[in-house]
Amino acid sequence: MAAFGTALRELRHDRLLTIEAVAEAAGLHPNYLGSVERGERNVSLFNIWRIANALGLPAAALLDELPPRKVKHS
Amino acid sequence: MAAFGTALRELRHDRLLTIEAVAEAAGLHPNYLGSVERGERNVSLFNIWRIANALGLPAAALLDELPPRKVKHS
Repeated sequence: MAAFGTALRELRHDRLLTIEAVAEAAGLHPNYLGSVERGERNVSLFNIWRIANALGLPAAALLDELPPRKVKHS
Repeated sequence: MAAFGTALRELRHDRLLTIEAVAEAAGLHPNYLGSVERGERNVSLFNIWRIANALGLPAAALLDELPPRKVKHS
């Protein structure tokens, strides 16, 4: 979901961290983390949790920006 | 993750909703939702979001109970 990736990228930038640094801390591949940030992945709970830990955040913080309902585009 | 399933079951019980009712509102199979509640699934972000909507909650609320770090059992 795009909103998740955008929020993740913003939280990472706030911390002045590279994709590589966060990926290594999370035990994920940098290419995978990049695709998550671009909204190309339906990321699993376990990986959400790993990414949150790598950013020093509770997992819920990564989902705070998600809209409650998907807007339908025509 | 077990903590997610436990939190989900509690939130569902608080609302006096059956697995079947939440599954139908979320567009998921009741058997799948049951396995999520038992902690047998590494649920995806999209399904977290669908379940949260079915409960009338923001997605982040379902992750509030997750521990920041996994406790290692010997």
